[in-house]
Parts: sequence; C-alpha cells; structure tokens
Amino acid sequence: MSSDVTSQLADWAIAHRRYLHQYPELSGEEFETCRYIKRCLEELKIEILDYPEPNVIGFFRGTEGEKTIALRADIDALPVQEENQTEYASRKPGVMHACGHDGHTAVLLAVAKWLSENRQEVRHNVKLIFQSSEEMLPSGAEKLVNLGVVDDVDAVFGLHLWQPLPLGKIGLCHGPMMASADDFRITITGKGGHGSMPHDTVDPIYIASHLIGALQSIVSRRIDPIRPAVISVGKLEAGTTYNIIPNEAFMCGTVRAFSNELRHFVADEMKRLVEGICASFGAKGTLEFEFGTPAVINDKEMSQFVEQVVESAFGKEMVAELEPVMGAEDFSHYLQRQRGAFIFVGMGGEKSAYPHHHPRFDIDEAAIPTAIQLFIQLLKQFS
Amino acid sequence: MSSDVTSQLADWAIAHRRYLHQYPELSGEEFETCRYIKRCLEELKIEILDYPEPNVIGFFRGTEGEKTIALRADIDALPVQEENQTEYASRKPGVMHACGHDGHTAVLLAVAKWLSENRQEVRHNVKLIFQSSEEMLPSGAEKLVNLGVVDDVDAVFGLHLWQPLPLGKIGLCHGPMMASADDFRITITGKGGHGSMPHDTVDPIYIASHLIGALQSIVSRRIDPIRPAVISVGKLEAGTTYNIIPNEAFMCGTVRAFSNELRHFVADEMKRLVEGICASFGAKGTLEFEFGTPAVINDKEMSQFVEQVVESAFGKEMVAELEPVMGAEDFSHYLQRQRGAFIFVGMGGEKSAYPHHHPRFDIDEAAIPTAIQLFIQLLKQFS
Amino acid sequence: MSSDVTSQLADWAIAHRRYLHQYPELSGEEFETCRYIKRCLEELKIEILDYPEPNVIGFFRGTEGEKTIALRADIDALPVQEENQTEYASRKPGVMHACGHDGHTAVLLAVAKWLSENRQEVRHNVKLIFQSSEEMLPSGAEKLVNLGVVDDVDAVFGLHLWQPLPLGKIGLCHGPMMASADDFRITITGKGGHGSMPHDTVDPIYIASHLIGALQSIVSRRIDPIRPAVISVGKLEAGTTYNIIPNEAFMCGTVRAFSNELRHFVADEMKRLVEGICASFGAKGTLEFEFGTPAVINDKEMSQFVEQVVESAFGKEMVAELEPVMGAEDFSHYLQRQRGAFIFVGMGGEKSAYPHHHPRFDIDEAAIPTAIQLFIQLLKQFS
Amino acid sequence: MSSDVTSQLADWAIAHRRYLHQYPELSGEEFETCRYIKRCLEELKIEILDYPEPNVIGFFRGTEGEKTIALRADIDALPVQEENQTEYASRKPGVMHACGHDGHTAVLLAVAKWLSENRQEVRHNVKLIFQSSEEMLPSGAEKLVNLGVVDDVDAVFGLHLWQPLPLGKIGLCHGPMMASADDFRITITGKGGHGSMPHDTVDPIYIASHLIGALQSIVSRRIDPIRPAVISVGKLEAGTTYNIIPNEAFMCGTVRAFSNELRHFVADEMKRLVEGICASFGAKGTLEFEFGTPAVINDKEMSQFVEQVVESAFGKEMVAELEPVMGAEDFSHYLQRQRGAFIFVGMGGEKSAYPHHHPRFDIDEAAIPTAIQLFIQLLKQFS
Repeated sequence: MSSDVTSQLADWAIAHRRYLHQYPELSGEEFETCRYIKRCLEELKIEILDYPEPNVIGFFRGTEGEKTIALRADIDALPVQEENQTEYASRKPGVMHACGHDGHTAVLLAVAKWLSENRQEVRHNVKLIFQSSEEMLPSGAEKLVNLGVVDDVDAVFGLHLWQPLPLGKIGLCHGPMMASADDFRITITGKGGHGSMPHDTVDPIYIASHLIGALQSIVSRRIDPIRPAVISVGKLEAGTTYNIIPNEAFMCGTVRAFSNELRHFVADEMKRLVEGICASFGAKGTLEFEFGTPAVINDKEMSQFVEQVVESAFGKEMVAELEPVMGAEDFSHYLQRQRGAFIFVGMGGEKSAYPHHHPRFDIDEAAIPTAIQLFIQLLKQFS
Repeated sequence: MSSDVTSQLADWAIAHRRYLHQYPELSGEEFETCRYIKRCLEELKIEILDYPEPNVIGFFRGTEGEKTIALRADIDALPVQEENQTEYASRKPGVMHACGHDGHTAVLLAVAKWLSENRQEVRHNVKLIFQSSEEMLPSGAEKLVNLGVVDDVDAVFGLHLWQPLPLGKIGLCHGPMMASADDFRITITGKGGHGSMPHDTVDPIYIASHLIGALQSIVSRRIDPIRPAVISVGKLEAGTTYNIIPNEAFMCGTVRAFSNELRHFVADEMKRLVEGICASFGAKGTLEFEFGTPAVINDKEMSQFVEQVVESAFGKEMVAELEPVMGAEDFSHYLQRQRGAFIFVGMGGEKSAYPHHHPRFDIDEAAIPTAIQLFIQLLKQFS
Repeated sequence: MSSDVTSQLADWAIAHRRYLHQYPELSGEEFETCRYIKRCLEELKIEILDYPEPNVIGFFRGTEGEKTIALRADIDALPVQEENQTEYASRKPGVMHACGHDGHTAVLLAVAKWLSENRQEVRHNVKLIFQSSEEMLPSGAEKLVNLGVVDDVDAVFGLHLWQPLPLGKIGLCHGPMMASADDFRITITGKGGHGSMPHDTVDPIYIASHLIGALQSIVSRRIDPIRPAVISVGKLEAGTTYNIIPNEAFMCGTVRAFSNELRHFVADEMKRLVEGICASFGAKGTLEFEFGTPAVINDKEMSQFVEQVVESAFGKEMVAELEPVMGAEDFSHYLQRQRGAFIFVGMGGEKSAYPHHHPRFDIDEAAIPTAIQLFIQLLKQFS
Repeated sequence: MSSDVTSQLADWAIAHRRYLHQYPELSGEEFETCRYIKRCLEELKIEILDYPEPNVIGFFRGTEGEKTIALRADIDALPVQEENQTEYASRKPGVMHACGHDGHTAVLLAVAKWLSENRQEVRHNVKLIFQSSEEMLPSGAEKLVNLGVVDDVDAVFGLHLWQPLPLGKIGLCHGPMMASADDFRITITGKGGHGSMPHDTVDPIYIASHLIGALQSIVSRRIDPIRPAVISVGKLEAGTTYNIIPNEAFMCGTVRAFSNELRHFVADEMKRLVEGICASFGAKGTLEFEFGTPAVINDKEMSQFVEQVVESAFGKEMVAELEPVMGAEDFSHYLQRQRGAFIFVGMGGEKSAYPHHHPRFDIDEAAIPTAIQLFIQLLKQFS
C-alpha cells in the first residue's frame, strides 16, 4: 500500500475524528455518534448488521469469504470538562473524548473506506465493531459478546492509541496485557454510642482500621508473588462528629488481577477476612464483590501474528516490548470468547503529553496513519 | 426548715421550670432566659452584679458577710426536637431543655427566693451564678471564671439533676468526678493516584488504618492502668470512589481523662505517633489537639462537707457512692480556680426514664425540693 | 503500750529476721523455716494447730474468746542471688528473701511473743498464720483457705513491709488494693513452608502480629475506662531461621484486673479474638487462660477500722492515701472468703532504696516496730 | 551424535554420580570431591586452571579457539540425613546430596570426557567450572566471579536437574528466572519492666507486632504489582516469661525479588519503617540488611539460543514454558558479570517424587543423558 493512500485515508480519518471530538457522548448514550457512523458506512456501501443501538456493526464480504476477522473500535467519551483550546475542542460542557475513542472510531471508519475502495484485494470477511460503553459498566463489549458478535469470526483485533507509549512504537503482550477490574463494598455494622464510653459500643471505625490492615495480607502473604494483584480501598466513610462512635463504617475499592481464578480467590479471601475479623470483634462485616471487567489476555498465536505484521509493515524497530499494565479494558470480553489480540499504538510525546482521562489529553494525530495501516495489514496478512 | 416551706419553694420553682422549659434557648443565645431570671431576682430584691449577658450573677449579702459561697446553675438548652407531649413541652421547634438545665435554673431561683425571705438566717454572702453555654464551646463557665466570678468566694457548689442516679439519692465523688473532654483532628496527606497502581501513591487510607491501631496503644500500653483515659475516633473520611486513592484522609475524635497532666501526656503521645507513623510511610500527619473542658475534680474537704450536709439533712441512706463518669461538665472551670464540689441529685426512675439529651428526656420534679434544700443546707452549714 | 516494750519486741524480731534472712527457702520448700517458727511458738507456749507443712498456724485463746482474729505472714523467699554484703546476707546461693517475707515472719513471731507475755490483756482469740508459697503457684493462701483456715475467724489482717511507701507511713485502700494476676498461653497453628513462597503457607508469625494488635483493643475499647486492666504479652516465640516460615507461633503473658467479673470478661474476649482472628486467616488459635491470684479487695469497714487504729496509735499524719497497685498478692484468697484488710507498712528511703525482688533489696528494720505495734493495736482495738 | 555415544557417556556419568553420592561434602568443604574431579580431568587430559580449592576449573582448547564457553556444575551437598535405602546412599551421617549437585558434577565430567574424545569436533574453547558452595554463603560463584572466571568467556551456561519439571522437558525463562535472596535482622530495643505496669515500659513485643503489619505494606502498597517480591519474617523471639516485658525483640527473615533495583528499594523502605515506627513508639529499631544472592536473569539472546538448541536436538515438544521461581541460585553471579543462561532439565515423576532438599530426594538418572547432550549441543551450535 502506497504511503499516499495511507496519507489520504489518514486525512479523511482525522477530519472525522475532529468532528467526533466536538460532539462527544457519554457511555450508553452514543446515539448521535452511531447515526454518524452509519451514515459513513452507508456512503461506503458497507452492510450494517442488525445489532441494538448505540452500537454499529458493519460487515464486509471478502473475495474468498471463508474466514472472518473482527476489528473493534470503542466510541464513548468521558464526563470530563475539556481544557484544550483547539478549534475541534468539545462543544459539550462536561463531556470530552479524553481517552481517544474518537480516534479509534475514525481509524475504523478509514478501514471501512479502504475496504470499500479495495474490494478485490480483500480475501476475508471483516466485521467492523463500533462498540458503545467501554468506559462504564454495564460493559458494551460484554453485551455484544453475549449477542454473539464474535461467535462466527476467526479472530478479533482491537487497538488503543496509547499515550504512555512513544509515537512510532507499536506494542502488545504475548498473554496477559491488561488487568481485570472488580469492585467491592464493605459495610461494618457495630454498635454506636458516646465516644467517652467505648465499652458500651462496638466501634466500627477501629474494626475498619484493623480490617484494612488484614486485607494487605492477601497480596503480601496469600497470592503467589509472580501473580500480580492489587486490592485498593478508595473510599472510607464513618461517623459524623467528634464524640459519637457511629453504628457503621463503609468502604469501597478496586481489585486487579490477571486471571479469573485469582479474582475468585481474592473475593473468597476477602469474604473470609471481612466476615471473620468483624465477627471476632463482635460486629457484622458484609462484603459485596462485584465482578467487573476481566483481564485482557492476548492469544499468543495471534499476538505473534500481530508482531510479525508490525515487523513486516513497519520494521522491527517499531515493535515495543511491553509489560502488562494494571489498567482495564472491556476488550477482554471478546478475548474471553474468541482468539485475538489487543494492541497499543504509541502516540506519547510532545503533542500528546497529558495522560488519558486528563482534561488536556489530546491525540497526536501522527499516530492515526499507523493505526489505519496496522488494521489493514492485519486484514491482508491474516491466513 | 419545715417541709412546708420547702414544698412551697418547690412548687414555685416547678412553675418557673415549666415556663423555662417551654422557651428553651441554645448555648450563647440565652437572652430571654436571662431577662426572665433578672426579673425574678429584681422582684426578690436580689442585687445583680455587672457581668456580660447572657449570664446573670445575683449577689446576696449575709448577716456576717465574712465568707461568700457561690452556687451555680447552667441555663442553656440543646438542639433537640422534643418528643414529649406534656403541656409544658418546648414551644421552639428543634430546641429543647433535654439536659435539665431548666430545673437547675429554677432551683437556683428558689434559693434566691428563700434568701430573700430569710435574710436574717443567712450569715454568709451568696453569689448566684446563672451561667450561659454549658453545652457548647466556648464554655460559659470558662468565660465567667476568667472574669473572676469565683475569685472572691470561699467555695463554689453546683448540682446536676441526674437521671442515671435513682430518685432519692444524692451522690458525688471525693476527688475526680467527671472527665475532661478534648477534641482532636488528624489529617494525613499522602499522594493520590489510581487504585490499580498503589506503588505510585502514598495511600492515606492504609496509613490511617495503621495509625488508628497505633493510637490504641496509648491507652493499652502507655497510661498507668489506674488512670482512666479514652481516645475515640468519631469520624473518618477519605476518598470519593472505588478506584482512586485520595490525597488525604481525615479523622477527628475525643479524648477523656481526669488530670491535666494526663491530657497533655495524651496530646504529646498522639502527636509523636501521628507525625512519626505517617512519616514512616512517606506521608505527612498533622494533629490538631484542642484542649476543651477540664475534668471535674471535687475538693475533698468540700465534698466531705457536702456528704455531711446530706447525711444531716436527708439521712445517711440518701448518700450514694459514685464512681467517676467519663462525661464532661464545664463546672470544672470553677473547680480549677476555687475549691468546691459538684453534686448529682438523683431523679432516675419511672418518671425520668430517658437519658439526658434524649428527645423524650424529662425531669422527675420530685427531685426539685431535694435540690433546693441541698443548696440551702450548704449555705446554712458552711462554716 | 510503752515504746520500751515495742522496742524490746522489735529487737527480738530483728534478731529472728536476720537469722531467717540467712536461711531463705523457696516457695513450697519452707520446711526448715517452719521448724524454726514452731520452735519459737513452742517456747512461747502458743498452741500449734494441725495444718499441713510447710505452713504453721498458731492459736492463742483470748480472755473473752468470743471473736477470733487472724493475722498472716508469708514465709517464702525468691530464686534471686543476693548482692548485699550485710553480715546477715543469704547463705544459700541463688535464694534470697528479696521481698521481705523474713520481716513479715519475724513481726508475727513478735506478736506471738507479746501475746504470750500479755495473756490477760487480750480479749479475742488470735490465729497466727505463717503461710507457705506466696510467690508461686499453687498459692499457699488458696490452699489454707480451702482448708478452712479463716472460716471460723471474724477478721483477717495481713501486712507487707512496702518499699515504694516511705518509712513512717502506713497505707491501705478502702476497697480494691492489689490487682488479680492471671496467666495466658496462646498457640497459633498455621502451616509452615519456605519463606520465598508465603502463598503456600499460613504464616503464624504474621497472624501473631495481627492478634497482638487486636488484643490491645480489649483494654482500649472494650473495658470501662474506670476499671483498671492490663493485658501484657511477655514472651513470643516462633520460627528457627531466616527463610523458613514455621508451623506455629507461641506467646504467653499476664492479665491484671480488680474484679472476678472483669477477669472473666477479659478471658472471654481474648478467646473470641484468638480463635476468631486466627480462623479468619486460615489458622487455628488456642487460648489457655489460667486463673491465678484474685485481686486484693479490702473490706471497707475493716479498712476504716485499720485507718482509725493507725490514727489513734501513730497519729493522723502517718496515714498514707494510696491508690491501688497492679501487683498481686495471694492474701486476696483470705479476703475472698472472709472480711479483713491488707496493709502496707512503709519502709522506703535511704536504707531501703532497691525495689522488692531486686538482688540488693533490703528491709529498713526501722519499720519493724511499727509493724509489730500495728498488729498488736489491731488485736487490742478490734471489737 | 549417536544415541549410543550419549548412552555410553551417561552410563559413565551415572557411575561417577553414584560414587559422589556416597561421599557428599558440605559447602566449602568439598576437598575430596575436588580431588576426585581432578583425577578424572587428568585422566581425560583436560588442563586444570589455577583456582583456589575447593573449586576445580578445567580448560579445553577448541580447534578455532576464538570463543570460549563456560559450563558450570555446583558440587556441594547439604546437612540432611539421607533416608533412601539405595546401594549408593550417602555413607556420611547427616550429609547428603539432596539437591542433585552430584548429578551436575557427573554431567560436567561426562562433557569433559566427550571433549577429550572429540577434540577435532569442537571449535570453541570450553571452561568447565566445578564450583564449591552453592548452598551456603559466602557464595562459591561470587568468589569465582570475583576471581575473573568468566571475564574471558563469551557465554556461560549452567543447568539444574529439576524435580518440579517433569522428566522429558527442558525449561528456562527469557529474562528473570530465579529470585534474589537477601537476609535481614531486626532488633527492637524498648525498655523492659513488669507486665503489670506497661506504662513504665516501652514494649518491644507490641512494637514488633506493629512493625510486622507495616512491613506487609511494602509488598501490598509500595511495589509495582507486576514486580514479584516477598518479605517473610521467619523467626521472632522476645521475652522469657509471662509477666516480664523484655527490653528487646528480635526477628529475622528473607527478601526475594528479581532486580537489584528492587532489592535496594525494599531495603530502603524496610529501613525507613523499622527506624520510623520504632521511634514513633519511643523505641529504637535497627535493621541489618544483608544482600545475598542476586536474581538469576537469563540473557534473552542466550536463552533463545538455548531454546533453539533444545528444539533442534530434542524436538519442540521438549521445550517447557516456565514462569520464574522464587527460589535462588548463585549461578546469578555469573550472569551479573557475563551473558549466558541457566536451564532446568526436568526429572520429576515416579522415580524422582520428593522435592529438592528432602531426605528422600533422588535423581531420576534418565535425565542425565539429556543433560549431557544439552551441554554438548550448546558447545557445538554456539556461534
């Protein structure tokens, strides 16, 4: 593929991306965005499959049509007030494409345009998944997977324009790549009373402090050191004033791991500690553990295929060796059902200096042609 | 003194008490109450000394006039919505004489009436202290003491109609009787970040939990077991959501003890633990320790005098042996400056079944004649 | 009683005390000491009751003989190597009268001598209890009490020559005076393994650390602050080397309190914490709680009688106001069965500058006449 | 290489191995073993370099002689009483080749024999390192490395007959493979006293318990979750009896990690916590951190070379994918100085069912031909 072609596609994609950036929509509310995507696909004569809004699933039939590859872009924005002064800055107060999904959407549209213009070159069928609600539960990916969106495909690929990775690099892991993210809520019910008479109370604040200490031991003593895991309490609330010991203490937090087995182990250990320690002090401890997003585990054959494609298309020096990150991505749901890989396309540097979710985050658009070409090469070289 | 006389005084006092009960005023705002008290004293021809409102200090000159005894009543009400259905229930929404200070005021008015009617029987001068703001800081007692209200007296006495003590009993301690009450605020400043990457943060919630554990050791390991002391955290607040580790954790609480030396010891030990432990974890811990109400420590000679008066006036069986209570009373300020004693007049039982500060608290008015007679006998028998 | 008489008795007592000091015997092994006491009593024609060795119980019949008063001295020494250079220093290596029981024995012998010489002056019967094994369990007092030694007496008194109290003072408490002393042993059975693989173990050292923290909360949160209590772990042992996590951790310690109710409360709370917290971490926690010496609780009537005797015999200025001490004394067993009082006879100062149980402890013998006279006056003034 | 040749070499090696197994020597005392090795090398006409005993370094000059490859075998045994009943069981009470170093020695001797018999086939020089004291500090590897044993080589390889890996597999990691192992000792100096008066003490047992809790937070809060690390306290000792609070508490343990940077981070964090927390409680905390064995980090190019050799020599199915293990090996010292790789040769199964260091551990000798051939192929294929 000539760099002219890529360059034209990229210009086209950037124009769309800038439009989408001005009209961001929150997770689960991407109805206008979907209308926009559909209009594009219709113009490109790409078939649109029947999936519930606010998702759009395009379908392209390849010349051979034996195999099907799914490519996924997430399309939602975040409840962040943009602080950039660009001409394409968000026009919606308090809503911003602060994670780069506008870029992902535009890249996948550009792939659609290329497909539409190169029908004879493409052997495999392609599913173009424009997915709602990556940023929030319920997960848009989980919903589509449950509707069977990748049941009939041979591989599924997704990418993230990634600020922590320098522009000019493409990286992925052969196996675990991003952590699972589960939520928990703990309520400790003691017995309130006057602060001057602790013996007439069962002090939930003291018990909470004890429990937080005990929770550390799951990571430090109970989990195989080579299995990364995190248990963080993010919020703790108890009591109203100086001299009254409250009835209850409440805390909530997040758990990260890289396997479903370990997630369940943590949930079980937490339950035993929460209930057991609270009971030991005469209180009642309740754990609500909400299993959220699984870990992103790349299929090794597929990740090696991606690496070869990157080497052949961009050169070996462009491959970045990555370690897993503790952040989560609901692309994991596709990989729980079907083989495939998730890929980071680097864009960090001067033009993209603020982290994802920051009010001054911006995409370095120089990464967009790379992303487009990566997806196209995956389609071309898949066998 | 004939019981007829007492009975008449009590009826008079009860009438006033019921009026005051209907028109309660919060701490520092007892202006109408003061006007009412002043009118009474003026009618009784009791001199009123020049002290700032909302306090009223009456003065009675005895026949000998060599010694002066101060009697104190506190006059403020509480921010409680009364739930009693009596005809004299509070007419002010959200404000209630839920601690019995209306009774104390009425009892002291009755003493004034008795003084006025028995001028030739009373050798000593009497100061009648109707004091504002016992329930809240800044303490009304501290203010009056700093103005010198007990500098020229030979003894100061106060009483509390006391629900935990059965009707028919009078009790006090020879020495420590009620605890000091000090407030503290602790701020732990760590470094916030994402819950999935605790190593990039200094987690103030974890450190808070550790610190609360450490604070227990002051009472359990550092204070002489025969010196009662309490350190209670009443409130703990940190963080806003599941997956963000906050910058700060905040907690506040109360400290109780029975000597100024121990209060300072606790403050010093807390400071060392707060600063040292937080620093050990790489955070900054700040303790604000606000010395509040000192302990009520009866002068032993005076408390033994009171006990003898109670025995002679009511009989030995009326004397209750009491242990110190961990609650606080700003009468302590008088006793820090001048010798004297604080006395509990029992009123617990069927008619006063709810604890002080409860929305259904009520005085058993059968205790009022006892309280009046106790004060009168103290005046008569003091030598 | 003339001071001449007292002085002669004291000289006689001091001679005996010095002899006893040279030949100390450990708890339960005071056979020679008993033979010595018996010889004295026989010479004084004091009847010896039939009690098992190594105890000696003398009996004196008073002129009226209606009431019986028991006086008790403990007679055992300690496993301490004396470091004093006096001519009467211990001649037994590693054994020493380092607590002053030699003095107690001599004082009670002097009382026997006085009785023997003043038979007509003494109305009441007197039991002279020379008791074995105060320093060690099983308690000699408990044994004698179970044999009924104070079942037929009207009051029982004991005294301790007391180094922390200055010479010239006599002190006691009206009520609780010395704490109970109970022992506990805690075994935590986890699952050992290699230190590099904690997840394959249940780490008893970590769990022990957690438990010790939790035990603090019994004193700091669960016991009424005005009830003194102590839980101290004195010994903790676990593991053998750097890189092996052991199967077990062991700790033991002491509990102090001033009421049997509170001792049982502590034992129950400890059991709940030990079993509950260990189980919460997947280990087995076992508490053995051995109830030892009860608290010394003086009967108030008796302690007031003692105070009056001290005032009349020595003057008011000799009475010391004492606070309870956390040390234990098995005299408590007598007071659990019979009314009476335990008394501290001060001897602290230049001549007795080292604490009880110290290798350089010595009695200031100037306290001995006071102690003799105190016992004699109690016998004389008891009614 | 024909399997006949390998088979003959293996038989020869097994005979030597069985001899060595009967005469095990502890770390640093392998003098007889060295004499035995030297005799073999002399018979094989392999040059012996001048290195201090009890090490033996053989040297073989290759036909080209441009590059030099080092192969290492460790030769020491363990203080374990063998419980096997084989005819070649240890003849030294309390000493046993319970880790398989007898096998490693025999394998390397067989390589020497092959070299000696195939001088024309070997292009590269070979260093044969028979190393003392792998099991104990001071490390034999560290000593040889400091003497420059691998300074002039192009690569260094070592292998371990590995019971956790099934017979028929060869495994290694591309990067971190075995953890570092460092020791620490912590002394907490408080102030002893009587258990009944904790306030007169600074209780080192309580402080130790607090500190152990705090140490957990290094792993759970301060270290990047994807960096494996372990801090285990293996031993804790404090106090002698129930009622005496000791002056000191002592603990020691092990730290595991996979990078020198992280080892230093842990040491620094531990120091801050030990000193800071002890000081916060008024005690003195001292940490002695002894850096021991570094992590075994394979050079990726070398480990990939090994993998290719295994695939070509034994087939792809023989390659085992391994995760790092938390155990340590002083082969790491070679890899800190020179590129190379450490390799696990599987032998787990029915014939080798007990773990390394177990009194019933035995080598499955069927792994020995594999190990010999692996080393020979590395020599042949290295370029």
